[in-house]
Order: sequence, then structure tokens, then C-alpha cells
Amino acid sequence: MSNTPIKGIYVPNITPYHPDGTLNEGELRNIVSWLIDKGVSGIFPNGSLGEFIRLSFEERKKVISIIADEVDGRVPILAGAAEPNTDLVLEMCHHCADLGCRAVSITGPYYFKPSQESIEAYFQDLAERSPIDIVVYNIPTLASEISVPVLTRLALNYPRIVGTKDSSADMCRFLHVMNAIKPTRPDFSVMVGWEELLVPTMMMGGDGGTVSTAGVAPEVMMKIYHDCVAGNWEQAKDYQYKLLELFQTMLTAKNFPTGFRLGYEARGFTPGGVRFPNAPSEVNDLTAIKDKISCLLGDCGLGDLPHSCSIPNFEAQATYNPVSMAQSTQTSGVSRNDVEDIVRKVMRNLNI
Amino acid sequence: MSNTPIKGIYVPNITPYHPDGTLNEGELRNIVSWLIDKGVSGIFPNGSLGEFIRLSFEERKKVISIIADEVDGRVPILAGAAEPNTDLVLEMCHHCADLGCRAVSITGPYYFKPSQESIEAYFQDLAERSPIDIVVYNIPTLASEISVPVLTRLALNYPRIVGTKDSSADMCRFLHVMNAIKPTRPDFSVMVGWEELLVPTMMMGGDGGTVSTAGVAPEVMMKIYHDCVAGNWEQAKDYQYKLLELFQTMLTAKNFPTGFRLGYEARGFTPGGVRFPNAPSEVNDLTAIKDKISCLLGDCGLGDLPHSCSIPNFEAQATYNPVSMAQSTQTSGVSRNDVEDIVRKVMRNLNI
Amino acid sequence: MSNTPIKGIYVPNITPYHPDGTLNEGELRNIVSWLIDKGVSGIFPNGSLGEFIRLSFEERKKVISIIADEVDGRVPILAGAAEPNTDLVLEMCHHCADLGCRAVSITGPYYFKPSQESIEAYFQDLAERSPIDIVVYNIPTLASEISVPVLTRLALNYPRIVGTKDSSADMCRFLHVMNAIKPTRPDFSVMVGWEELLVPTMMMGGDGGTVSTAGVAPEVMMKIYHDCVAGNWEQAKDYQYKLLELFQTMLTAKNFPTGFRLGYEARGFTPGGVRFPNAPSEVNDLTAIKDKISCLLGDCGLGDLPHSCSIPNFEAQATYNPVSMAQSTQTSGVSRNDVEDIVRKVMRNLNI
Amino acid sequence: MSNTPIKGIYVPNITPYHPDGTLNEGELRNIVSWLIDKGVSGIFPNGSLGEFIRLSFEERKKVISIIADEVDGRVPILAGAAEPNTDLVLEMCHHCADLGCRAVSITGPYYFKPSQESIEAYFQDLAERSPIDIVVYNIPTLASEISVPVLTRLALNYPRIVGTKDSSADMCRFLHVMNAIKPTRPDFSVMVGWEELLVPTMMMGGDGGTVSTAGVAPEVMMKIYHDCVAGNWEQAKDYQYKLLELFQTMLTAKNFPTGFRLGYEARGFTPGGVRFPNAPSEVNDLTAIKDKISCLLGDCGLGDLPHSCSIPNFEAQATYNPVSMAQSTQTSGVSRNDVEDIVRKVMRNLNI
Repeated sequence: MSNTPIKGIYVPNITPYHPDGTLNEGELRNIVSWLIDKGVSGIFPNGSLGEFIRLSFEERKKVISIIADEVDGRVPILAGAAEPNTDLVLEMCHHCADLGCRAVSITGPYYFKPSQESIEAYFQDLAERSPIDIVVYNIPTLASEISVPVLTRLALNYPRIVGTKDSSADMCRFLHVMNAIKPTRPDFSVMVGWEELLVPTMMMGGDGGTVSTAGVAPEVMMKIYHDCVAGNWEQAKDYQYKLLELFQTMLTAKNFPTGFRLGYEARGFTPGGVRFPNAPSEVNDLTAIKDKISCLLGDCGLGDLPHSCSIPNFEAQATYNPVSMAQSTQTSGVSRNDVEDIVRKVMRNLNI
Repeated sequence: MSNTPIKGIYVPNITPYHPDGTLNEGELRNIVSWLIDKGVSGIFPNGSLGEFIRLSFEERKKVISIIADEVDGRVPILAGAAEPNTDLVLEMCHHCADLGCRAVSITGPYYFKPSQESIEAYFQDLAERSPIDIVVYNIPTLASEISVPVLTRLALNYPRIVGTKDSSADMCRFLHVMNAIKPTRPDFSVMVGWEELLVPTMMMGGDGGTVSTAGVAPEVMMKIYHDCVAGNWEQAKDYQYKLLELFQTMLTAKNFPTGFRLGYEARGFTPGGVRFPNAPSEVNDLTAIKDKISCLLGDCGLGDLPHSCSIPNFEAQATYNPVSMAQSTQTSGVSRNDVEDIVRKVMRNLNI
Repeated sequence: MSNTPIKGIYVPNITPYHPDGTLNEGELRNIVSWLIDKGVSGIFPNGSLGEFIRLSFEERKKVISIIADEVDGRVPILAGAAEPNTDLVLEMCHHCADLGCRAVSITGPYYFKPSQESIEAYFQDLAERSPIDIVVYNIPTLASEISVPVLTRLALNYPRIVGTKDSSADMCRFLHVMNAIKPTRPDFSVMVGWEELLVPTMMMGGDGGTVSTAGVAPEVMMKIYHDCVAGNWEQAKDYQYKLLELFQTMLTAKNFPTGFRLGYEARGFTPGGVRFPNAPSEVNDLTAIKDKISCLLGDCGLGDLPHSCSIPNFEAQATYNPVSMAQSTQTSGVSRNDVEDIVRKVMRNLNI
Repeated sequence: MSNTPIKGIYVPNITPYHPDGTLNEGELRNIVSWLIDKGVSGIFPNGSLGEFIRLSFEERKKVISIIADEVDGRVPILAGAAEPNTDLVLEMCHHCADLGCRAVSITGPYYFKPSQESIEAYFQDLAERSPIDIVVYNIPTLASEISVPVLTRLALNYPRIVGTKDSSADMCRFLHVMNAIKPTRPDFSVMVGWEELLVPTMMMGGDGGTVSTAGVAPEVMMKIYHDCVAGNWEQAKDYQYKLLELFQTMLTAKNFPTGFRLGYEARGFTPGGVRFPNAPSEVNDLTAIKDKISCLLGDCGLGDLPHSCSIPNFEAQATYNPVSMAQSTQTSGVSRNDVEDIVRKVMRNLNI
């Protein structure tokens, strides 16, 4: 599997916990196998969604071991290896290589924000010493940005660096990355990490996405992906628009990645809460958010609920903010609706 | 012309000056008629590119009068009316209405940054009192952002508000605007104000663009637009990528909109400098930037120069920044190349 | 008066309007003479507080003419001249010089954000051509920042540039400015434009402040200033802390400078509303905010109200944000109190 | 020592490494005992300067164990405990308590940026379960900000939370914190984490600082502190200004905390490089930066070098940026001087 191109829809997994906060291996296995059954292209443990930052080093290793064992070669694994220093990154790279992962994904440094020159030196060093292919994970709201020229030089000079996951929500950056790298190195994978841009990036030549919503609605995301590959742009477009509210609802639920974990609950799993306390006021919102997610999933033809969300929720747009994952003043996405807007929408839906 | 849908490619015009800094009416007329001859869809005076902020109120009126006279009904005019207070905005609206303009474009407030609630009240007031249709101009790097829910409520409640020009460079915002407004009000125009996103937004259902590059390379921009309308996505895509470096070079030349004015010079016009001093170090760069623009235009099949820019300039990507128009530390886009990268590119070009 | 050092407390004036929105000359004269009677050091028309950006060019000229006539040489005038282009700035400079103003104050460019090199060239040009002394007004939340090295070179090379007003709320910047300029040019005035920093900057050698609160509570601000000059630091400190909530309440009231105008109302003037609509929800808050200001003024020994605000309002701290003037999501500073905190405070006040 | 008030100058220690990158226990002991001999008030292991984020959990424990052993009760220890999840924070708290540390310091969460409500719940949980006093470490450029109202409620409700270290470089925030907490809880320690503000904050009632420069120039920092306590404000002020360039030189040297480590080298220690690669271009600057630091230390009467830096370096001001620790485009602070400025300064120094 070591030369498989990285493309399609990779699913960043959540990390399920037992009620006492320890790793829930069984549920992690359940989720992974369910996703593979749904046809996803690959699995991505220890990304931001998986709260890698809140696990211990040993827990991160264990998550990958469990997933590798459960996957058992059925799909490729792209594993997060954004450890706090070079030695630990390399230790994790060896761990992943030994387990047969396809590649590792490494963010720019977090907490400190070194110069672009230093960041380039850091990835050069890793590229020269890693026993496994590297995907450069750009997520500037949470970790140091990796600039386009740095990424370009890394891509054009280091065979070990085989792709990028870009969670910047920045379509222009995507275009510049494509333009700078693909003509010279067409096999370099450019995966979008922001599901709202899946169809636009695929239209412009992208390779797919590593997108959190794919864990909650794998059927929808795979349908979009296959429509894109087949050139069914109109259908892909429709689902892309349909997806926006579901994504925003899960994204902007307070205490990320709480919203996505509620999505897994809506699909029947028991992931447990995030590893950071929710304020009491936030806990009160959880049921409403989960109900809304169920309902939006129903609208997409998923879940047990009927099509009950056909009333668009304008509050979702109200919270729209492309970098809201990094905002400390998130709102829940579930609040008083603008009655006039709803009535108009309902009227329109009834008539058409 | 009052009901013409606002779509296609509108050209934000620069404001040409005589060497003494006064308005150059003749050159303004030359540019406008040249653009109409090239087939552009409309003209957009007193936008950011036109340095409306640096003109006096009387000069802004005069610019529109000249253009209306020169256009003489051949294409619709969308005129900037972002005056400093409501009374002056309305005075400008009447001026534009009297001259037969199609609509006015109004930014959020600049300098002060009122709450979204106040901004909504401001546009509601204008919508109720304006004698001419209004396009909401969102340019958050330079003026207060108009949030998606505010824009949505304005669009769904006020027939006077007929569209938006969005220069946020934010593809996700575009998708949310489309999703919130178009299903209910399909005639609402959503025009992108960032040329890098022209093809992606049109693919996703947008109405076109008001894009500065259209003044320098109207042939290219109209070709892209017509390819999009015809569904020739592959060809549109190729030109979209080709355009990136030209746009970045003009955008990131210091002292915006200096770079675009150099573009007009490259096409044979005499616009004069911007109304703000260039530092001596910046003046030194002007010739090199102009040469590079000529060369990039040549690559697109325009201008007198042969296809001489086939060596991609990696420095252009180095300066990539979607909000660079608002940055105070812009670099010129013309600097020492990475030799290794160039050699590789040349080799590739020679072989393919 | 042309050589008077610029020091002490200059009051940025609000611009009073009649109910129909036109300039209220009588009330402007009343305010100015009242302030002079209270002993303020100087008057500062056409600053941000005076909404210069929302006046026409002619109105700005008229405001200065009225004030110059009313002041009649009693105190020096520092007049805003941040016009949209160099020619208009110089026209305003001549207007101010003809009226006998002490100096003009010029911000960095707004809307566009040129490079620091261009901004330096702009001020160099003005310094060489202005008939009146210039104060460089740094207010980075609303207009382009003027960097410390640019300001330093301007101060050390141009006698025409006699001082700076700094509204950045950045104490570190103040220290760097002092350190870079004062040893070589001790007569250069460094005036703080953020009242929370008045005492700390004077302790570190500053020359005073141009601070909005001085228009609402001139007695308090002058007392603080004189205590600082006399070295009564303990007393100055006490009032500095006392001032924080009053300032934050006026600053963070929605739709700046609404809060300060309510302060003038609390002192018995009739300034009228700002030149930008308040949303209906915001209008509802106005009375409560005005009452709170009255009450806080009473606590300082001013106004008709007794000492009725001895219950600190924790919500004021909740909205603390040094750049909140530029935030679009301001809250009113008047909301539900944390009961437990209040009870504790009251208990403490009763016992001590 | 468990009830000692936290005040004075605490020194955040660097973490010295052997050439192979492993912890250099000997040099760590040397530095700690040298600092105690110089009279510092306390030691602060595992802060940002100590690169806690780049150590493994075991290494962080070991650093504290070594320091506790070396300190041996001579001064109090405030130990960083910003571990990635609550369980690990509490494990570190117990470790510190067992070693007799005075308190632990905990930042807001990094990487993720939860809501203020969640952050409050997090600290409440820790305050209820920690076996050792807690200092809330606010460093918003690197970790989630802890808002003033959240900090206030924590301080007023939890005896376990005994103070704050504030590295925001925001004097206004300091004043609001003081105003909200000290009247009710005067024993709450407010320590500044930005040396440029040491004198201003002490003038306004602060308790001292946990400041990196104190490790390189403990004599100077302790002199400033003792002058403040004694009310010798003029002398304290002089040294505060003198300190600015030294701090900025160390702060803005690329690849923080490289500059401070060079400072330790200038004092004769062998700390080794940071745990993140310097780009080759950055390595070239290291000697010049170290020489400049030596020279600036000489100016303060420290080190082996004579008073050789009496020529102020204007480039230091050029790089001034209060949040530059978090910037990815730092410059080295050592570059071509503005000759005219230097000549003027030298002339002034010769004459006075």
C-alpha cells in the first residue's frame, strides 16, 4: 500500500472515551469498521478532530495501533504525528511505518510560532529522516501556517513529502498551491480539510478531502466525491449546498469537537464527551444541537428521523465564520429563529 | 436599463490624473470606450480601485457624470456611493439615478466600525429612501464587514437591494450567501470581487464579477466569463490558473492601486500615479513591475510583447496573501528567483 | 501662541447636531466655553470623537472656525486635519493656521493601508509644506498605524512635526516612542489618547493626554493631571482606577461615540445622536447607559446624583477590550450583574 | 513556604540541553544557584521560556525535580503545569506539591480555543482538585486568553487560585485586573510577565514580575524591583528605559527563545540551542546578536565588556511589536543602522 496515491475522502476519526475518560477501544473499532463499510477512502487518526493534543503520547500511539489492527489493510491510514519535538515526531513516524500506515500528517508548530524559514528547516529535517511519507497539514487557526512558497519548495525537493491537507478554509490558497506544485509534480496530493470547499476544490483539480463531516455522514460525502469524479457537477453542487448547515452546526457547537461527537451520537455511537469541560450553560444546549444534527441528517436521507428539517435555520448562517473553530466566543447555532424568514421559506417549500 | 439583471463582468475603473494631480477626463473617456469595445458587461466607477476615498465629493460626482456621458447607454453603470454619511449617500444616489446608472454600490462604514445591528439599520434606511437600486459591497479588509445574516435579511426584505459585490476573497462566505438568498430570491445578483475566485464562484452558481483585472485584461476576463457561461470548464480553469500571477503582481505592488495603474500603462494608457506618495524605494520598482505585467499579459496573448514570461515566478506565490490589499508590509512581487526552481520549470517546459 | 508646548489635557470635542442632523453651533459654543471654564489645557476639534469622518469638508472647516471664534485665544487649539488627500490636508492646514490654531493633528491614511515607507513619504511631504505645526495621530484600530521607527525619523528630522497623539492603548509603544525621541528632542510632545493610561504615561514622563473623558468629566481629568504634575501619585492612582468603569461604559456603548454623547447629556448638554443609525435594540439601551454614566459621575463627585454607584458593575470588566472601539460586536456594558459578586462588594463597602 | 505571598521577581528558567539535545542537568543547577546568589525572589520552571511545550511529560517532571533539589528551600518555586488534559495537569500538581513548590502556573488551553465559559469551568475544576496553589498564566499570543471577568470570578471564589501572571503586554488589562480583584482580595498576586511594563505596573500597585530578562540580567531586574519597592521611581524609570533594547533584542531574535539563550551564553553559561531548527540564514545572525546582547549588558554595568553600546540601535525600535513573540516574520534586530540617527546620538552623548 506504500505507493497508493492519497486521494478520495479520508475520515479524521474522533477518539471515543469511556465514561471515566479513558480510551474506548471497542467503540473506536466499531466506528472505524462502520466507516470502511460505508466506503470511505481512508482513515485519519490523531487529527484535530481526534483531540490529539489532549491525549498522552502513549495514548496517541495506542489509537493508531488499534486503528491499524482494525483496518487490517482494507483502506490506507494517514496518521497524525504532530508531536512536540523532532525526536518524538520521528518516534511516531517509525511507529506508524511499522504498523503499515500509508503516511503521516504533520502540522506546523503550535504554541510557539517560529519563522517560515525555521518551519521550512523543520520539515526538511523530517523529510530527510522519516521512514514514512509525509503530508503537510496546514491549519493556521490552530498551528503555525506553512506558507505557500515553503510548501512549494518542500513539495518540489522532497519525495518524502507527498501531499498537503489544507484546513485553512482559504480557496485562494488552494489555487496557489495547485498552481505552484501540480504542473511540476502532478502526483502531489492536495486534499482539502474544509468540507464547504470540497466541490469547488475538486472542480479546480483537487484530490479530495480529509473532512470531519465524513465521519458523521460518510454516505453523503462519498456520494459527493463520486459525483465529482464522474463529472456530475450539478448533483455535487446540490449536496455541497445541502451540507453547509450540517457542517456549521457541528463546527460551531461550543467546545469543539463536541458538535461532531454529537453527530456520531446521532448515528448511534457512544463517543462520550470531549476532554475539556463544557460549561453548565453549554451542557444545556447539547440535546438541542444533537436533535438538530439528527434532523439535518434526515434531510440528507440518513438516520432514523424523517425529513423534518426542511425549514432552513437562518441562525446557522448567523454564526458563519470560516475560522470559527478558533474563536472563543462561539454560539451554539441553536437559537430563536427569525419567524418571518421561516414562514417565507415554508411557503416557498409548500408551493414548489 | 433599469431592470437589467446585474451579471457578467463589471470593470471597476481607475481614476486617471493629469501630471498635476487633477482629473484627466480625456483618458478616463478613452479607457471607458476601450473597455466597452472589448465587450465588458458594465462599468463600475468610484470603487476602491478608483480611489474614491481620495477624491473630493465633487470629483466623485464628476467621475460618474463623465462616465455616464461617455458610456451613453451602451452598457450599464454600477456606481460607488459609499459617502461619509446618509445624506451624502442619498445625494449621490440621486445624482446616479439622474444620470441613468443601473445601481449604486455601497460599502459598510469605514473608519468607524459600528455593530452589525447598526449597519443593518443603515442599509434599511438607505433601501427605503434611495431612488436607485443598491448593491451591497462587502470588502472587510477596508470597510466594516456586512455579515451574512444581515445581508440575507436585507436581500429578502428590500427589493431596492438587488445584489452584492463581495471582495472578501472568502469562498465559504460566497457559498453561505448563495445558500441563504438564491433559493428565495433567484434574481439577487452575487458578484465576486476577487478575480482568483471567478471560475469557482461561477461553477457554484454566481453571476459574475466586478474585478479589477478586467480593466487591464478585458479580453481574458470576458473569455473566462463566456467559457463559464458555456460550460467550458476546462478552458475556464486553465485561464483562471494563468491569471493568478498577473493579479498578484498588480495587487501586491506597493501602494495599491499602483500595480493596476501600471497595468493600464502596459496597455498603452497614461493614468498617472496614485494619489498617495510612493516612497523612493518603491518608485525604483515601478519599471520592473510594469515590465513583468507586460510580460504576463503577453503570456495571455495580449500586449505587444511575445510570450516571454513562460518562466513562472515563484516570488509571486511567496507574496500570496488573500488580504494583502490591506497589509502595510507589502512586497513588490519582483525579487530574486529561486534558481533551482526556475531551471526545473524550464526543463519541464522544454520537454513537454 | 505658536510656540506653546503641547501638554496637559486637550479635549477632543463632540460635534453637536440639531434634531434635523445639521451642525448645532450654539451647543458647540456652550460646550467649548464650559470646558475652558473648567480649566482644560486645550481643545481638539475634528478628532475621532468629533466624527470628523462623517462631516463634509465644509462642515469640518466650519467646526474649527466656530471653535476658534469661541475660544478666542483662551486656550490652544489642536485641530484634526486628516483629509482624504494631500491637497485637501494642506488646504485644511492653511485654514487652521489662518484661524490661529496651535497645530493640526493628522492620522495615518484610513481605508487604504499603504506601506510604512509610503506613510513616511506622506508625512515628510506634509511636514515640508504645512504652514502649521503637525501632531502625528496614531490610532491603529481605525487608521493605518504609524510605526515607531517612522515616527522617530519624522520627529528627529522635521521641526514641523512637534508631537504625537497615541490612541493605540499600547503602553509599550509609548515607552518605545519616549525612549527613541525624547533624549534627542525633549520638546517633542507625547500625548496619550487613551485615558486608562494617563497616570502610567505621566509617571513615565509623558506630556498629558487628548482624552475623550475630559469632555464629560473635565474636573476629574484636570485633577488627575495636576496631581501627576505635583507628584501626588497616590491620589492620581486612585482616580485613575476610579475612571476605568466610566470610560469603558462610554467607550463600549454601541455605535461609538454614542456613549460619550450620552455623557454630555448627563452633564446637561443636548448634543443629539451620532450620525449613524442606532438599531432599535440599541436605542432601548440608551437610557440605562445614560443613567449609569450619571451615577458613575456622581461617584466622582460630579453631577446632580448622589454617590449612588458604589456597587461596582462587573459587566463593565466583562466587556473590557483595549481595541473595542473597533469591534463590531460591542455590548452595551449594561446587563445582568453577577449577584454573588455584588453582594460581596456591598458587604465589603459596608464594613470598611 | 506554603503561605509565602508570591511577589518580587520570579525567573522563568531556560532548559539547558547537551549537544545531543538531552537535558543538561548540571548547567540547569548552575544557572539556578547563580540566580539565587544574585538575589532573585523565586524560580519559575516550565514556562514558555523553558520550552515546556517541546519537552516530554517526563522531562517536565524531571526539570522541576532537579530545580526543587537545587533550590533546596532557598526561594519559592512557581512551576508550570500547563499539561494537555486535566488528569495530567493534576498529576503534575501533585508532583509539584510533593516537591514543596509554592504554586503551579497554568495557561489557558493551547491549540484549541474553547469558549470563556469552558475555560472558566476548566479552572474551577482544577481549583477544586489541586493539592497546590494555582497562578493563572495569561499569554494570549500563545494560548487561549483568560478574560478579565473569568479571572475575577476565579480569584474571588477560589482560595486555591492565588495570583496571575500576565504576559499579554497589555497595561490596560493589568489595570482592569487590579481594579476588579485587589479591593476585595488584596493578597491576590498580580505579576507582570512583560518586563517593559515592570515599573509602570509596580507604580500602579502590582506585585512584581515573572520576566525572562531576569535570568540574563538578574542584578538589573532586582535593582529595579528594589527601587520600586523603595519608591525611587526616577531611578527605576531610568533602568526601565535602559532595559527596552536589551529585551527587544532577545525577544525578537528569530526562533524564540533563542535570543534569551544567547543572553545566558553572554553571561558565561552553555545552554545549547533551542529544540527547533534555526534556518541557515538565522544561524548566521547568532554571533552578532550575542555580541549585541553582551554589549547591552555592558551598558548596564554587567558582563566583561566595557560600556560599548552607548550608540542606541534604532533598528531595535524598528522591530518593536508587543506581540512579536507570536509573529512568524520576526527580524533579527541586528541590521544596517540609520547613519544619520547614530551620528546625531553620538554627538549628543559627547556633548552631554
